[in-house]
Amino acid sequence: MNQTPQEHVEEKARAAKTASVALRTLSSDIKNQSLLAMADALISRQDEIFAANAKDLEAGNARGLSSALLDRLKLNPGRVAAMADGCRQVAALPDPIGEIITGRKLPNGLRLEQVRVPLGVIGIVYESRPNVTVDAAILCLKAGNAVILRGGSDALQSNLLLTQIITDAARDAGVPDGAISSIETTDRAATSHLVTLNQYLDLVIPRGGEGLKKSLAAVATVPLIFAAGGVCQVFVDESANLQSASDIVFNSKVQRPSACNALETLLVHKNIAREFLPLVAKRLCDANVELRGDESAREITSMNAASEGDWNEEYLALILAVRVVENLDAAIAHIGTHGSGHSESIVTESYANAEKFCAGVDAAAVYVNASTRFTDGFEFGLGAEVGISTQKLHARGPMGLQALTSTKYIVRGDGHIRA
Amino acid sequence: MNQTPQEHVEEKARAAKTASVALRTLSSDIKNQSLLAMADALISRQDEIFAANAKDLEAGNARGLSSALLDRLKLNPGRVAAMADGCRQVAALPDPIGEIITGRKLPNGLRLEQVRVPLGVIGIVYESRPNVTVDAAILCLKAGNAVILRGGSDALQSNLLLTQIITDAARDAGVPDGAISSIETTDRAATSHLVTLNQYLDLVIPRGGEGLKKSLAAVATVPLIFAAGGVCQVFVDESANLQSASDIVFNSKVQRPSACNALETLLVHKNIAREFLPLVAKRLCDANVELRGDESAREITSMNAASEGDWNEEYLALILAVRVVENLDAAIAHIGTHGSGHSESIVTESYANAEKFCAGVDAAAVYVNASTRFTDGFEFGLGAEVGISTQKLHARGPMGLQALTSTKYIVRGDGHIRA
Repeated sequence: MNQTPQEHVEEKARAAKTASVALRTLSSDIKNQSLLAMADALISRQDEIFAANAKDLEAGNARGLSSALLDRLKLNPGRVAAMADGCRQVAALPDPIGEIITGRKLPNGLRLEQVRVPLGVIGIVYESRPNVTVDAAILCLKAGNAVILRGGSDALQSNLLLTQIITDAARDAGVPDGAISSIETTDRAATSHLVTLNQYLDLVIPRGGEGLKKSLAAVATVPLIFAAGGVCQVFVDESANLQSASDIVFNSKVQRPSACNALETLLVHKNIAREFLPLVAKRLCDANVELRGDESAREITSMNAASEGDWNEEYLALILAVRVVENLDAAIAHIGTHGSGHSESIVTESYANAEKFCAGVDAAAVYVNASTRFTDGFEFGLGAEVGISTQKLHARGPMGLQALTSTKYIVRGDGHIRA
Repeated sequence: MNQTPQEHVEEKARAAKTASVALRTLSSDIKNQSLLAMADALISRQDEIFAANAKDLEAGNARGLSSALLDRLKLNPGRVAAMADGCRQVAALPDPIGEIITGRKLPNGLRLEQVRVPLGVIGIVYESRPNVTVDAAILCLKAGNAVILRGGSDALQSNLLLTQIITDAARDAGVPDGAISSIETTDRAATSHLVTLNQYLDLVIPRGGEGLKKSLAAVATVPLIFAAGGVCQVFVDESANLQSASDIVFNSKVQRPSACNALETLLVHKNIAREFLPLVAKRLCDANVELRGDESAREITSMNAASEGDWNEEYLALILAVRVVENLDAAIAHIGTHGSGHSESIVTESYANAEKFCAGVDAAAVYVNASTRFTDGFEFGLGAEVGISTQKLHARGPMGLQALTSTKYIVRGDGHIRA
């Protein structure tokens, strides 16, 4: 390629902007037919996919990628079938575009509607799992947006081919050129440039670790919504049903420790700590969870010492910080100071404490007597998600189709002028 | 003050953050009582207000401020009464906080609610009209937010006293300290620092010209929503009722040319240009509007020549750019290229063209057969506004109380764990 990374990104962004004008009024039928066609194409062209993926795996092997990373990268018939199923599921979701959110006749007779419309052009910057290429593209398309994909360099060949396959299928179904594209260079300058193209892009969603987050936030002028990590807490109140509390803590920590909604710090009311901690500690240790406790916790149950840094740590691993707290207020204060505003749960039989926790904790999702692991677009009934936002503007919590839209007012009159 | 501007801003921001925790659960009653108390205090302490305002006017006079700017700055009994009325009106609005936006029982029995909550801490950076101090503060308070006000330097004494008066009234009614504060320095470093304090602020709303916008966008890491300017268009279609079109164009341009929703460029279908342009031009010229036309317009009616730059110009004055267009598509294309996404209107008797315009124009407000001047929080029935957003994320169009809120999910279970 003779272009600089910047020129390459601008070309993609300009084409996406052009496509976004046609996408704005594209019918639900065409969007859905293209999603179904993508599903078929992914299945029928899976041998090509495996061949491209094999190149990525080989290169990754040669670079010494860990087996965990190689596994994330690997595509097999089951994973391709899951991508195809994702296309069919998104085709079956209601089209968010055109929804009338509010509407009324104004006193002067003007008819006002607030209508849901596409955002325009969305950039998605993500890690090395190739399935995100398809998942993100189809949600953006369903919501009437053009999308520019920037996947991890380890998956470049897989991502480019997946983009090609879904773009071909989409074009045949009537989706305009430029609606879906991938950045074809792994040069980091491409990403840094993408997040400054305000004339073309309406939103960039970075999905990845703190490093990516910081590097983009420093240079971005396009609005960003991070598919965020989470430092999630469960508070076991003095009135908790301890068996249920043990189940919830265990599930929140162990069921999928690498998820952003997994538990990182357990807060235990001091009045039940002596009874509860040994119970839950045994179960967690049997599941190979390393406990790191404050002084009070360690007086009750033997475990490693937590440092001050542990309260802010997103382990994403079988490690759990444990703190004994004076009361509910102290638990809410801990969450306010150390939580990341993702998912927070109280286990309690007290109506008053449940309500106080719900009102006092400021997070995307606040739970009573339930695992933090439910914070998820599918679980919440949104159908799918592009990630979970812990920001407060525009979208908070699982970001489904609605998070990929904007609104406009349409106002119909009969020669109305302002007095 | 021995503090640096940065230290001063951080102190205010830290206090605001602390106050925001208590504000989150403050009752509607206390918020409303404090708004009514502010109204009373503004009236009863108006002599103090006039004295502080006189200092600003005197300093402004000495600095040679224009009479227009001095008029914007000046407070009199009518303007103080209007601020007090504003407080009472906002007290009468429904409290947005606690609204359940969506809710359902999930298949697994979890009860899910999406609840409206305050954003947290909001910064408002604004020009020299002192009434914005009160208008912005009361909307932020009603929506449960702490607010940090940064008014224009010309109005410093007026703004500080107004902040003092409403803060005193709010405190007596039970609003926590720090909920409302003003930056007490006119050093620009204060504003630049304010927009980087992500640990304290959730949103900054700049209200002002392009210079302010650019200077803040360059340094901000806190999300910004600009109370934006507008390059607004009216397209007079070939089927338009020309009398109504003339009324709408005249009203959009002349009724308040300094407003962001005022008309800047008139687009006329070529098939009615010969009939319509002389008609509307006479009326506009009689009202001292300077016309700047393209070649086709000038062939029909004598007017100054428009340069390419005129199509992007927000005049905010009695100047109107005029362009004759080939058809509806050309009008939509002009708006897509030159409009700022604020308010766009079509005058037409064609059902198909009205619908095509509404679907094809991407702007905060799209009108059929009505003046662009209606884009306004009060006119739209939102009760009040902190400005008009032309951004697509979070809030688009007039920003009422809802634009100053976020949401959170509350999920109630009975020991639910994820399978």
